[in-house]
Amino acid sequence: MPCAFPTVHERHVTDFLDSAMENIVTEKKAEESHRQDSADLLIFILLLTLTILTIWLFKHRRFRFLHETGLAMIYGLLVGVVLRYGIHMPRDGTSVMLNCHVNASPATVLVNVSGKFYEYTLKRVLSSSGNKVDDVSDNENEMLRKVTFDPEVFFNILLPPIIFHAGYSLKRRHFFRNMGSILAYAFLGTVVSCFIIGLLMYGTVTLMKHVGQLHGEFFFTDCLFFGAIVSATDPVTVLAIFHELQVEPDLYALLFGESVLNDAVAVVLSSSIVAYQPTGDNSHTFEGMALLKSFGMFLGIFSGSFALGVATGIVTFTKLRDFQLLETALFFLMSWSTFLLAEACGFTGVVAVLFCGITQAHYTYNNLSRESQDRTKQLFELLNFLAENFIFSYMGLTLFTFRNHVFNPMFIVGAFLAVFIGRAANIYPLSFLLNLGRRHKIRSNFQHMMMFAGLRGAMTFALAIRDTATYARQMMFSTTLLIVFFTVWICGGGTTQMLSCQRIRVGVDSDQDNSVIPERSSTKHESAWLFRIWYNFDHNYLKPILTHSGPPLTATLPPCCGPLARILTSPQAFENEGQLKDDDSDLILTDDINLAYGDITVNTDGSGVHTSSGAGFASGMSSEDLDRELTCGDNEVVMRGTCLVFPMDDSEPTLKDPHMRF
Amino acid sequence: MPCAFPTVHERHVTDFLDSAMENIVTEKKAEESHRQDSADLLIFILLLTLTILTIWLFKHRRFRFLHETGLAMIYGLLVGVVLRYGIHMPRDGTSVMLNCHVNASPATVLVNVSGKFYEYTLKRVLSSSGNKVDDVSDNENEMLRKVTFDPEVFFNILLPPIIFHAGYSLKRRHFFRNMGSILAYAFLGTVVSCFIIGLLMYGTVTLMKHVGQLHGEFFFTDCLFFGAIVSATDPVTVLAIFHELQVEPDLYALLFGESVLNDAVAVVLSSSIVAYQPTGDNSHTFEGMALLKSFGMFLGIFSGSFALGVATGIVTFTKLRDFQLLETALFFLMSWSTFLLAEACGFTGVVAVLFCGITQAHYTYNNLSRESQDRTKQLFELLNFLAENFIFSYMGLTLFTFRNHVFNPMFIVGAFLAVFIGRAANIYPLSFLLNLGRRHKIRSNFQHMMMFAGLRGAMTFALAIRDTATYARQMMFSTTLLIVFFTVWICGGGTTQMLSCQRIRVGVDSDQDNSVIPERSSTKHESAWLFRIWYNFDHNYLKPILTHSGPPLTATLPPCCGPLARILTSPQAFENEGQLKDDDSDLILTDDINLAYGDITVNTDGSGVHTSSGAGFASGMSSEDLDRELTCGDNEVVMRGTCLVFPMDDSEPTLKDPHMRF
Repeated sequence: MPCAFPTVHERHVTDFLDSAMENIVTEKKAEESHRQDSADLLIFILLLTLTILTIWLFKHRRFRFLHETGLAMIYGLLVGVVLRYGIHMPRDGTSVMLNCHVNASPATVLVNVSGKFYEYTLKRVLSSSGNKVDDVSDNENEMLRKVTFDPEVFFNILLPPIIFHAGYSLKRRHFFRNMGSILAYAFLGTVVSCFIIGLLMYGTVTLMKHVGQLHGEFFFTDCLFFGAIVSATDPVTVLAIFHELQVEPDLYALLFGESVLNDAVAVVLSSSIVAYQPTGDNSHTFEGMALLKSFGMFLGIFSGSFALGVATGIVTFTKLRDFQLLETALFFLMSWSTFLLAEACGFTGVVAVLFCGITQAHYTYNNLSRESQDRTKQLFELLNFLAENFIFSYMGLTLFTFRNHVFNPMFIVGAFLAVFIGRAANIYPLSFLLNLGRRHKIRSNFQHMMMFAGLRGAMTFALAIRDTATYARQMMFSTTLLIVFFTVWICGGGTTQMLSCQRIRVGVDSDQDNSVIPERSSTKHESAWLFRIWYNFDHNYLKPILTHSGPPLTATLPPCCGPLARILTSPQAFENEGQLKDDDSDLILTDDINLAYGDITVNTDGSGVHTSSGAGFASGMSSEDLDRELTCGDNEVVMRGTCLVFPMDDSEPTLKDPHMRF
Repeated sequence: MPCAFPTVHERHVTDFLDSAMENIVTEKKAEESHRQDSADLLIFILLLTLTILTIWLFKHRRFRFLHETGLAMIYGLLVGVVLRYGIHMPRDGTSVMLNCHVNASPATVLVNVSGKFYEYTLKRVLSSSGNKVDDVSDNENEMLRKVTFDPEVFFNILLPPIIFHAGYSLKRRHFFRNMGSILAYAFLGTVVSCFIIGLLMYGTVTLMKHVGQLHGEFFFTDCLFFGAIVSATDPVTVLAIFHELQVEPDLYALLFGESVLNDAVAVVLSSSIVAYQPTGDNSHTFEGMALLKSFGMFLGIFSGSFALGVATGIVTFTKLRDFQLLETALFFLMSWSTFLLAEACGFTGVVAVLFCGITQAHYTYNNLSRESQDRTKQLFELLNFLAENFIFSYMGLTLFTFRNHVFNPMFIVGAFLAVFIGRAANIYPLSFLLNLGRRHKIRSNFQHMMMFAGLRGAMTFALAIRDTATYARQMMFSTTLLIVFFTVWICGGGTTQMLSCQRIRVGVDSDQDNSVIPERSSTKHESAWLFRIWYNFDHNYLKPILTHSGPPLTATLPPCCGPLARILTSPQAFENEGQLKDDDSDLILTDDINLAYGDITVNTDGSGVHTSSGAGFASGMSSEDLDRELTCGDNEVVMRGTCLVFPMDDSEPTLKDPHMRF
């Protein structure tokens, strides 16, 4: 398409021709830019493809020292090196500097280019210090700019499916059984970790200032912000290995539950810290009022997001079972709209999506047709997989392509130490406190494993890259990258060694592990009574109203509420009354598989130790009688469910299991 | 967060504080804009949710007069009306007019706003005529601008899954059986339709110019472009009803195949027409050289996209079967990278994706594990569903929210007539010509039905909205919208009436309809010999190399190629040798279900007419002997496959079927 650029503007005659020509030029330019964008995106797709193929090889050969996310990072690093040092694309010179005499930065700029109007949208603030702009506009590698994504992409596109998937796959009885401990680690632990790391980093920064290593401002709120972002653990590598090796389900539940929830805590915490803004000009000083406001914000955002997520998650599909496609589509859209709704309301979408996922797994899932259950699971599994690997490969890439890295050895050393100490301050004291209340203690090898499994991943990265405008944030971002790399590669890679070193049982079939529980109820009074009340309420009232499973309300409500109960209970619930155990099998265990117990407990250094433990628990059923009076109707099934959620004692101490050291 | 805007710039002391404050202001602004974006997107999600719920109601009640896409359009229209007339958001005044003394429009603009640098990216060209800009910058409804998507979104995000899904679900033996006719309709027919419509529109435009109705330039190339975009048929509504009512599979295959392929033809045709650019300043005049170049481009782009699509589609996964997630992810990424690769190479991604889908359905699908087959099907089904309904609801919305509509009654009437005539000129003459060569004639009621089912949909819309810069394009876009609305609502809604009016059989089980075919081979010599050769080659050589199904190459290749054959054949192919019929069941029919034939042919006005037809076909098997010499080994199965792809004579004429009128 040879097309001369119009230079002569004979407005009267060739006006239309001219404008047509100009249109073509614009079109060509747009096409060129589109082709370039496609090529850039293709790099990432091929990177992911390569990762998948290599993962397959690793899985096939049963290599466990490197997880797919670690691998994605390595490939990302390699491509980053190539882009940085290999390809030298000349800057195309299309960037033009304009001087504008407005006070605020407008969202949209209309540029009058020789009679034609172009609309420009704000992409980013380059830098607050003027000298950096030269750096940008001179011979910088254009390619690097091309492969840099808008940081908000991570938060608004890639994180939601990951977090939702985590919530949606949380439906495990081991999670509910350890709920108290998980909540403690996730809430208390994350806050503790955040403040410990923040304080330690403030010490480091102050030291750096004294030594003259600090080349910019670094406020205490920045330190706290750093503490918040690196407190979000993401042991995806460890959990994958746990799953593969069938590590003890309680440990799995503790780690998984903690990591899922502390993401939510960390993101709200970090936004509260950013919002901590003392009034007046002297910002960054301590002020009680602002702290209180921040704390209020934390509570507000968290509970708002929580309520929103739960509310939309609770939406029930009663009659769409016949059209699986519609059902799946609706499910997907509801999850997405939860995110958008929360963001539009000023809450945190990620948190809302998490609780939406948990609620949907608990209630909505039961209403879906069998096919839609599979479909939704597989869909979010795929989205999670793609998003996760994309984030990790981008992490690798960005180590070389990010332009404003600030690597400060002192800060890095301090950060590593702080992260380590912060994790320790989270796990050990909390475990000690929890063990005071728990019948089924969190053993020290579990604690060490949890300490070791404090990997940092996608959430930390997304929070760190979200804002890299100031010197402090840039230094944080660079350091965070290193922390992620180290923990994913070293801690993730050493998981199997750590497991065998800590003598943690592997090969435990989590589905049948606790089949003996219904037999024992002596521990009932020691269990979390709050949780028990919630569970009864949920099982007897919420489940029947919100799902087709559970006992009909006519059975659980007092007789006086008969008509109301009949209205609220779905017709299927009556039909399902018989098969109740199957529908709720996540919480209710069958007790006819006791005999298989010995076969399935495979020990690392000796099997069959636990064959006798089943009999050891077969004590009195007295306290069930009490509960039987509380609820009426078919509470036989209900009670069995209630029993199960109590902490289980693996009774190693009694049996003097040789490989459990306290 | 009360935060005073910094007005005093005391650079030395409060520099950092000031910049921190500014950062906060920028952050707040970005947050505000992000919340607004979330709210806007939420409108669409809720629109889709509403559509799904209503569709469910319709499906539940078995309403067939309105398809989900038609419904999506109606809801879109309603929301459009509300946004246009209901909500009056004041313009936020953040848009600033800058005058810039550069010649070309830069892709990036750096704006120096009182010492800070902001990067802006080019969003769009507002208008070539200066007076339009006032229109934009004055009190226009800000909301309308917010809900306007970048037109490229349709082409690069929403269309690919739709088109891929169409290709991926093309794997039907009825498609292969009617391949010749489908290709004729899609290629020849679309080109004929494009030129007929283009010429008619040129006539209309010339007339309009004489009457003084034309208020801008409208060139012949614009007319041709219009012809190309409205030649892409999208009978999604009709096909959904066909599928539901189980209309005769040959008609289904003809319509579906045509609509899938003519999308590809239309998109390449339109880009060739845009590229038609005579040299020199006098554009828009006829020039042989430019035409030839355009034609060459058409061939080049089409064959390039085709080759690319087939090449990436052919990629085989040989050993990933054990890891379904990896398999599905890889499948998804390969399809996407086909699109990106084609776009990066300057080909047409949509076309590449279409042929990638067809190839993957034909080869790759056989290599997938059973679970991945389901997963990939369901995934693309869901994506297709969401994308399609989104496009159609956006279509409804844009009728009211698009700002530069040009509704010209004369042009609209002319366009409707031209579309009608163009479709007729496609179907009837081509059917006549095809019937000369076809043993199994395309009956006149089929022809009328195909004529009637020439709906316009997603592709037409995406092509029309892609460029609405000039007056001609704006008029085209507005008219196209009306054509889509009319055809989807009126033609789509009248499908059942038309079916019964044309006395087309419904309730035909397409899987078992042709079970009698293996018995007959008298029509063999009348069939497409080219296709037969291809089929044999494909079945004997390509399938064994590329998939695990098909006969081992050791059986199909001459003995001298033994070692090579052993290398190229996958181990599974040897194992699968026995169950070959199942793997390739789309093309190979079992002949032991003849007796069931009478039960499954449900007629509109009388059943069981065809029970005797099976016996009628049981003629000689002579020509199979010939083929048996061509291939060696287990060609018993191969031959049965070959037989089947021949045109089938439903033999209504012989049987004097009372409801088939010629």
